[in-house]
Amino acid sequence: MTGFTPQAPNYCERVQASFDAQAFMKTIGARISHLAPGEVDLTLDKRDDLCQQHGFLHAGVTTALLDSAAGYAAFSLFKPGEEVLTTEFKVNLLRPADGPRIVAKARVVKPGRTLTVCRSDVFAHRDGKDVMIATALLSMIAITSGSG
Amino acid sequence: MTGFTPQAPNYCERVQASFDAQAFMKTIGARISHLAPGEVDLTLDKRDDLCQQHGFLHAGVTTALLDSAAGYAAFSLFKPGEEVLTTEFKVNLLRPADGPRIVAKARVVKPGRTLTVCRSDVFAHRDGKDVMIATALLSMIAITSGSG
Amino acid sequence: MTGFTPQAPNYCERVQASFDAQAFMKTIGARISHLAPGEVDLTLDKRDDLCQQHGFLHAGVTTALLDSAAGYAAFSLFKPGEEVLTTEFKVNLLRPADGPRIVAKARVVKPGRTLTVCRSDVFAHRDGKDVMIATALLSMIAITSGSG
Amino acid sequence: MTGFTPQAPNYCERVQASFDAQAFMKTIGARISHLAPGEVDLTLDKRDDLCQQHGFLHAGVTTALLDSAAGYAAFSLFKPGEEVLTTEFKVNLLRPADGPRIVAKARVVKPGRTLTVCRSDVFAHRDGKDVMIATALLSMIAITSGSG
Repeated sequence: MTGFTPQAPNYCERVQASFDAQAFMKTIGARISHLAPGEVDLTLDKRDDLCQQHGFLHAGVTTALLDSAAGYAAFSLFKPGEEVLTTEFKVNLLRPADGPRIVAKARVVKPGRTLTVCRSDVFAHRDGKDVMIATALLSMIAITSGSG
Repeated sequence: MTGFTPQAPNYCERVQASFDAQAFMKTIGARISHLAPGEVDLTLDKRDDLCQQHGFLHAGVTTALLDSAAGYAAFSLFKPGEEVLTTEFKVNLLRPADGPRIVAKARVVKPGRTLTVCRSDVFAHRDGKDVMIATALLSMIAITSGSG
Repeated sequence: MTGFTPQAPNYCERVQASFDAQAFMKTIGARISHLAPGEVDLTLDKRDDLCQQHGFLHAGVTTALLDSAAGYAAFSLFKPGEEVLTTEFKVNLLRPADGPRIVAKARVVKPGRTLTVCRSDVFAHRDGKDVMIATALLSMIAITSGSG
Repeated sequence: MTGFTPQAPNYCERVQASFDAQAFMKTIGARISHLAPGEVDLTLDKRDDLCQQHGFLHAGVTTALLDSAAGYAAFSLFKPGEEVLTTEFKVNLLRPADGPRIVAKARVVKPGRTLTVCRSDVFAHRDGKDVMIATALLSMIAITSGSG
């Protein structure tokens, strides 16, 4: 129960199919770890080839994770026939992206006919607990063919 | 001539060495295509494994490029002994990230003792011209050991 | 000549009329100092009652100025019958908002059918020159009755 | 109990004194309605002279409220001798700022030696309930004389 009612009865299949079509999610090894109306968590295991010069996850990878999570959180509420595009986001990096497992938890803050605003918080699981490493606000737009 | 005076005489070597230590830049095939005091361009060739579900470059890759470019634009002005970390950024995605070559052009807007603010614009080269696909504002912090 | 073609022949009157209807612009003493397709500058004189605890212009006033400037820069390109609303903005405060006269210069970066992205830079005129005190990115949405 | 421990025993007096020195807060009629370590709520009554062209509170006033709330939420955790400055913020405007009373609720997300990140949500009280009209992320910097 998330307080949101999906408008596409097969929203789970739609999200999973679109996620599976994101080659870059496969490249970084991300997977859907939670899916509910207006809520998506994505998880990845930290790998050396995804890191920056200090050995932390690159902010681009953190952003890929939190952005795709938010896109699918929004998409889970869209009508059949609508696609999702990110229009903008803001990310505050709070702590080093370190730890074996990284999780982005995206939640819809405000659904809308055109724009849907999401929050996406990213956690690193280390030493037996989850530490918030980034927090973001994002805008998603619902498009049908030809719009934008 | 960019109007900025680097404080580390070997700023080019420092930037290149740090960039070479970013495993994720190698993973996505990014390279430094311009480097001057307060200015860095990074270029990559679009590849299928870096794309999202519509075949455009994933926003996380675009962000990796514009963020690293901005980080090194700031870092080029830092004193010896200082390291750079991104504290936050905001990205507006303007057009689909499509085209064989993507370039992020980062410029320091305001250098500072602690915080340096950069702008980073991303262009797709297609049909013989450069189209702006994203624009971003970013904050970089100079850290020495123990600070943060 | 700004490279943009207005779609409403009376765009100047529309912008001025809407601006005149913004009570808060009158409250802070802001005025339109430049208007062209996709471009609006707003100017105000610093007053003590608009300041924060250090005697600088309050960031809320700076934001009011840069936001209204950007809204009208976007609105100048809208079709007859369309209204403008800000959906989001990001502001980097670069230097203290000090000096007798403050000017926000907003320019459309990317016009769109639904969303228009603007940049808005704010300058303080002091000691005979303009100093950039803030830079912002903003998204404006075109609405007709019932949309949103 | 907020989970944060203030470092200045007289943090309440410090916040109130600094707030009282913000002339613009008096201009718009804002007041502190909640104060705890890392938490500040500011409240104002909507007035016609604070509105934009559609009769809603101007985004600049909403921003003044959420920014000052966040600044004082951060400041409540600062050490004696430190001052607070906003370095940047991002605001998503979710719904029209309408209703007789507007409240900004700011909470520290991540305190830091140099930078403190806050979230600030703004609510309009109308028809007997609170509606979220804006959400923001902000960075605050602790400065001592001469730093910046």
